[in-house]
Amino acid sequence: METMGRHVIAELWECDFDKLNDMPFIEQTFVDAALRSGAEVREVAFHKFAPQGVSGVVIISESHLTIHSFPEHGYASIDVYTCGDLDPTIAAKYIAEALGAKSRQMAELPRGMGPVAVPEPSASPV
Amino acid sequence: METMGRHVIAELWECDFDKLNDMPFIEQTFVDAALRSGAEVREVAFHKFAPQGVSGVVIISESHLTIHSFPEHGYASIDVYTCGDLDPTIAAKYIAEALGAKSRQMAELPRGMGPVAVPEPSASPV
Repeated sequence: METMGRHVIAELWECDFDKLNDMPFIEQTFVDAALRSGAEVREVAFHKFAPQGVSGVVIISESHLTIHSFPEHGYASIDVYTCGDLDPTIAAKYIAEALGAKSRQMAELPRGMGPVAVPEPSASPV
Repeated sequence: METMGRHVIAELWECDFDKLNDMPFIEQTFVDAALRSGAEVREVAFHKFAPQGVSGVVIISESHLTIHSFPEHGYASIDVYTCGDLDPTIAAKYIAEALGAKSRQMAELPRGMGPVAVPEPSASPV
């Protein structure tokens, strides 16, 4: 298996409070996002914090998707990392829309190609 | 809870083949790395691939640690993301040493502070 991968760092702001605090919804959204990207889901682990917030991961054959949500700030911190021919932006955009993010910044880092390359991030309205 | 976090991207090369393929060892290393950082472990999920390779995550109260290992390339792709006062470089360095990485590159990205800021990575021998 080749080491090369694409890692999307997504900062989602002005998201819907209730969605950011709904663990079953987030878990289903992440599994759906992985499947829409063509990924194979291997492990799913989510955790609900008190009084609010959700953290979780979907391990896929092609790497992972993670979230940390902060409903009180309307913020979700997302990573979508894929190897092979998959496009991580498909999942990242699907998640941003599902969480009702009114603003987002995304940066894509190549992984497994030697030194860490850090391109300029892009900001775009949903 | 504040949204601000520190996310260390670590590319570990020339690691020990057997360690990269030993799921119980990697899982224990990651839990130990989290605890040494002062983190609180919430969920642990690892997966062993055939014929080789391990993917996994430790969800901590303060975010997460992940790995994807490619024993045949001596490569491990590591993320250590912490919120609060924790220092993610403690865990990243501990993991690099445990896996016998002879070379590594690390970059630290601030998270949850607005736009994605992408500083220059640093490369250093272990």
